[in-house]
Amino acid sequence: MNEREFSKKTIEILREVRKRQPLVHHITNFVVMNSTANVTLAIGASPIMAHAHEEMEAMSAFTGVLNLNIGTLTPYWIDSMIMAGKAAGKRGIPIVLDPVGSGATPLRTEAAKRILAEVPITVIRGNASEVLSLFTKEEEIKIRGVDSLETVDAVRHGAHLLAAELKKVIAITGEIDFVTNGDKSIEVHNGHPMLGRVTGTGCAATTAISCFCAVESDPLVATAAALGYYGLAGEEAAKASNGPGSFQVALYDALYNLSEKTMMEKLCIKPVQ
Amino acid sequence: MNEREFSKKTIEILREVRKRQPLVHHITNFVVMNSTANVTLAIGASPIMAHAHEEMEAMSAFTGVLNLNIGTLTPYWIDSMIMAGKAAGKRGIPIVLDPVGSGATPLRTEAAKRILAEVPITVIRGNASEVLSLFTKEEEIKIRGVDSLETVDAVRHGAHLLAAELKKVIAITGEIDFVTNGDKSIEVHNGHPMLGRVTGTGCAATTAISCFCAVESDPLVATAAALGYYGLAGEEAAKASNGPGSFQVALYDALYNLSEKTMMEKLCIKPVQ
Amino acid sequence: MNEREFSKKTIEILREVRKRQPLVHHITNFVVMNSTANVTLAIGASPIMAHAHEEMEAMSAFTGVLNLNIGTLTPYWIDSMIMAGKAAGKRGIPIVLDPVGSGATPLRTEAAKRILAEVPITVIRGNASEVLSLFTKEEEIKIRGVDSLETVDAVRHGAHLLAAELKKVIAITGEIDFVTNGDKSIEVHNGHPMLGRVTGTGCAATTAISCFCAVESDPLVATAAALGYYGLAGEEAAKASNGPGSFQVALYDALYNLSEKTMMEKLCIKPVQ
Repeated sequence: MNEREFSKKTIEILREVRKRQPLVHHITNFVVMNSTANVTLAIGASPIMAHAHEEMEAMSAFTGVLNLNIGTLTPYWIDSMIMAGKAAGKRGIPIVLDPVGSGATPLRTEAAKRILAEVPITVIRGNASEVLSLFTKEEEIKIRGVDSLETVDAVRHGAHLLAAELKKVIAITGEIDFVTNGDKSIEVHNGHPMLGRVTGTGCAATTAISCFCAVESDPLVATAAALGYYGLAGEEAAKASNGPGSFQVALYDALYNLSEKTMMEKLCIKPVQ
Repeated sequence: MNEREFSKKTIEILREVRKRQPLVHHITNFVVMNSTANVTLAIGASPIMAHAHEEMEAMSAFTGVLNLNIGTLTPYWIDSMIMAGKAAGKRGIPIVLDPVGSGATPLRTEAAKRILAEVPITVIRGNASEVLSLFTKEEEIKIRGVDSLETVDAVRHGAHLLAAELKKVIAITGEIDFVTNGDKSIEVHNGHPMLGRVTGTGCAATTAISCFCAVESDPLVATAAALGYYGLAGEEAAKASNGPGSFQVALYDALYNLSEKTMMEKLCIKPVQ
Repeated sequence: MNEREFSKKTIEILREVRKRQPLVHHITNFVVMNSTANVTLAIGASPIMAHAHEEMEAMSAFTGVLNLNIGTLTPYWIDSMIMAGKAAGKRGIPIVLDPVGSGATPLRTEAAKRILAEVPITVIRGNASEVLSLFTKEEEIKIRGVDSLETVDAVRHGAHLLAAELKKVIAITGEIDFVTNGDKSIEVHNGHPMLGRVTGTGCAATTAISCFCAVESDPLVATAAALGYYGLAGEEAAKASNGPGSFQVALYDALYNLSEKTMMEKLCIKPVQ
């Protein structure tokens, strides 16, 4: 797909989300439960937040996608994610993982790796250091051969290798987002620095990916399209606001109101050659 | 009471809430703790969120109403609700139950039924499917005789039977809200579709009922008045906003600012003949 | 320092926060996790919310300040606070305590006292009744000799004694904030009544203190400066808003946008003679 085709596809997926209103089961952190639920609704899907072990199996019977997020983690919640993930996996429901803080503490890194080992994750979305923390020693050595671990190219190269090995989609978000399935890669140039001054906007980007994965069968395309749409909403919100408080409000409004015309003109999703 | 009398009564109850500023003890879900606390404050009451078993008895000594909500439930929280509910019951404190997701998973349905069996609930507020899930097999058979379970009239008929049997007030919210104590029934025509695009607005409607029940001894009247006032605030918020983000902000402002003149003109609370 | 020097110092500390962007580790209540994270970001620092026992030690390796808040408390969370507090104490990281609801229930009061006994707290911020609840019987008797416990002067006198005894800074916030280290005392005259109509604004004042303590070595000065800046943002937000919903939005914007000119003109932080 070229840039124009990606824009068209993004519009098509968003229409489909609004038509089917899939249920997005979140097991997520306490900080962003409210904001990710609101983002889900603004996009046009339906949020359900639930983590009790007793209902993880039952939830999978009527959810369209499972969104896992390891912020404010405790062991009970890791088990919730594993249970929900296995139940979703059995039913072929897509699963999106946000490894918040992986790499910062052993609890987070080990939780992210355990979830990856035990649950058939479809998409991983993190910042560069979170994605880096998921690499095996061998991958680190391979990419160290290419370049320093610190450079963008090296992290992208590592993500490419990891995505190919794990057969998953990996998205590294930042000034320019990079999405890869280990075969094809895509860059998303939409977004705005104000997203960094509001809590949970990374988690909400993952929520957008989940909403799109619930209705689009190619997770590479769904992920890139979701990040383009979400980033563009951030650009529009920045124009309509005057600080982080009004920016967050305008972000929900923009996700809800973004016109297809604006998307055709301003989405910037491009294949990496 | 006729429509005009209901409007006057609503104004009177709201004045009383603001004068007495009752403490509203919430045991509620993680998604809406912040927003229901803010709604409590906008209405003019005081929120306290607490769920530790060690302080459920102590809390009942100074709360004006207990608000129970079973979203993001785990067994620990069910026990918190039972403990707080029994303590409140002993002191004659009104208790309002929001059976979020009852009917969706066995954990939720059983928790709602257990709370109803062990705690002297005053008011139940849910959507049609949540209220339906609380019916006994016998009630379901009775109303099935009347009509299909799916129709509004059948659900209302069932709620009427259930309210009479349990001696509670039941409110089914939707496009038109229906409130019954098993003897008299009331319709509330206020509200706005944008309430469905913001998370926790149903839970916050329950919070409004709790605030009103803390100062008004007739829970049927308190419930209908609260839903009218809350729904009208939603109507005013929709006029002052441009999407779900600004709608939520405008909703808090409207709850705080709604004038008695606007309430006299636009509240639409009517007895069902 | 005189009033003008306090204004200059506040500007200097805020610049330093924005330059160093310290990580503020919060162990706080469910109601305010989102709003205190957003206040941290609006001020220019970085929030991390974490409470798992397994990562309390690890977190202390890269945090600039620890913010403890006992709302929505359970025993597990008390232990989290003790663990994190001990780890922070070993590294000389400042620790700020918000004893939410201390005095209201034995669980809260005992938790606040246990944390004070086991953790080297730097600053305590509460309202008058919360601070009162931390006094020992002996202090209560001493200040009872002076005046009734209910009067502002008596509470201030008690706080002064307690701060001297514990070698901590104590801030009592209210219409006029009072900050003391048991030797010097400061009054902060900034603030606005609308702060009382939004949930978590007291908790967020504590967050502001934490952000300032992360970069300023004198906690008395850091606390007074933070309360002045935060209160002034409240004043500016009140001008730009129309109720509690828009006030909260405007508060985040004002914390982010407050100019040094406005701070020089309107901050009102004064030594108590």
